[in-house]
Amino acid sequence: MPVLVVGSVGIDHIKTQTEDHPELLGGSASYAAVSASFYAPVRLVGVVGNDFPPQHRALYEAKKIDLEGLEVADGETFRWTGQYEADMNNRKTLSLALNVFEHFSPKIPASYKSTDFVLLANIAPALQSQVLDQIEKPKFVVADTMDLWIEIARPDLLALLKRIDLLVLNDSEAKALTEEGTAIQAGKKLLTWGPKFVIVKKGEHGAILFSKEKLFVLPAFPLDTVFDPTGAGDCFVGALVGYCASKGDASFATLKEALVHATLVASFNVEAFSLRRLEKLTKAEIEARAVEFKEAAGLA
Amino acid sequence: MPVLVVGSVGIDHIKTQTEDHPELLGGSASYAAVSASFYAPVRLVGVVGNDFPPQHRALYEAKKIDLEGLEVADGETFRWTGQYEADMNNRKTLSLALNVFEHFSPKIPASYKSTDFVLLANIAPALQSQVLDQIEKPKFVVADTMDLWIEIARPDLLALLKRIDLLVLNDSEAKALTEEGTAIQAGKKLLTWGPKFVIVKKGEHGAILFSKEKLFVLPAFPLDTVFDPTGAGDCFVGALVGYCASKGDASFATLKEALVHATLVASFNVEAFSLRRLEKLTKAEIEARAVEFKEAAGLA
Repeated sequence: MPVLVVGSVGIDHIKTQTEDHPELLGGSASYAAVSASFYAPVRLVGVVGNDFPPQHRALYEAKKIDLEGLEVADGETFRWTGQYEADMNNRKTLSLALNVFEHFSPKIPASYKSTDFVLLANIAPALQSQVLDQIEKPKFVVADTMDLWIEIARPDLLALLKRIDLLVLNDSEAKALTEEGTAIQAGKKLLTWGPKFVIVKKGEHGAILFSKEKLFVLPAFPLDTVFDPTGAGDCFVGALVGYCASKGDASFATLKEALVHATLVASFNVEAFSLRRLEKLTKAEIEARAVEFKEAAGLA
Repeated sequence: MPVLVVGSVGIDHIKTQTEDHPELLGGSASYAAVSASFYAPVRLVGVVGNDFPPQHRALYEAKKIDLEGLEVADGETFRWTGQYEADMNNRKTLSLALNVFEHFSPKIPASYKSTDFVLLANIAPALQSQVLDQIEKPKFVVADTMDLWIEIARPDLLALLKRIDLLVLNDSEAKALTEEGTAIQAGKKLLTWGPKFVIVKKGEHGAILFSKEKLFVLPAFPLDTVFDPTGAGDCFVGALVGYCASKGDASFATLKEALVHATLVASFNVEAFSLRRLEKLTKAEIEARAVEFKEAAGLA
């Protein structure tokens, strides 16, 4: 079944201690849509300026992503420049220009309105809600978020929680949102605020899936090193929803397997800058790493 | 088969933001020996002063720990006072008195010399080596260590690595010792310095077992909260060696299951101050939590 992905589309400039890469394809919707495309047909909703490079559009097209919902507005595409510290776990924003994204109001094409699997990738929660207003009875709605929205748009985020099936966020965000001291307490509290499922991501330490009845704890894929963590969380959630859509199901059992695939696609993504690794990634490589990962994590 | 445990025995005073507990049984050997005793007969090597409280000795005896190797020296027992910060992940030492431990030189009783499973719990690496000098052909030698020895006794620690089968240490220690940036790189490098196996512990994020051929990554048991993390690492390694001794084996497959039990016993230990939880812990409780943990971690 198809997946609708809404989020940001941008042009990133990423600096690490040793590398400097301008003009990269970025944005939460880019990473999420490309990741979901390994599992299911993807319908993209976002906005770019009329400067959006043809090679970036060509990457979406190569992944057979439906671009009817990708609005081209007069002006420049969203741009972000970030600098990673030596350990690659911390980064700072050097510059940010919202450009056409500043007045983005998601418009869902008629052909997308009955999509069953909906991923609200990381954008303002008010925009995520606007998307839900335009979708007819989705089967499974997943929302990603970030620390910024917890700080500046908390009421919008809390309202959104009552309308979604699964919230995905990282452990520091889960603790900040709930004011709980541990990821386990935070995940359990979030379940009482609306969503049927919560996933707390812990980066290199794995992730935890919560339902009211059960937990599933999964380590990360044991990578030697990380070249560029940008977009790893977006890839994670994109592959997760793509996997569920491919099964037409979002039960706890399906979500457990989806979490494995989310972890795998994110692990590939951090091996190169921007979407360069996913551009070349094949389904066979994912399957091979799935075997390796299940062996290393002792999974049944 | 029996396990020989050597390490520190002390009296701890532990403070958290809300609690204050003096006169607690502590020391790496105490936690490790009691944890190992759930799986195998334990032979303890350590030193206490003649002020060592009878109720602490009674706890060892209740766990059927062989105390022939517990020397009673003239003077006071090792004492440590620690203060935990609010998040329980960081602590500072408020006071430390080595007392009789200052001149401790481990003496292995004749009846212990042929022990096959040896745990060198956390003490100075030179003392750990002195123990090995007195043991006849052990089958499996495990050493724990800490940041202090990496800083002040690095040559001793590197020499020890060539004489042991398994090194257990936490991720920040592994990175500091190897000067590598990730736990995976650090674990792999440590394998080239002597031990056949390495375990990198990540506290609430689980642990990674390394051999030259394979990895095993395991999340931690998902606990709501932690009351007292003191000794968790010692319990981990004690249960690990105890489990191996109970099987008379230390293959990769046995170590994987041992890692599960190490995680479980450590998870019980942090539920109460000092050894109070392990004092009452039963084998049936461990088995019940093993079922729960394997379900939550999707283990085969």
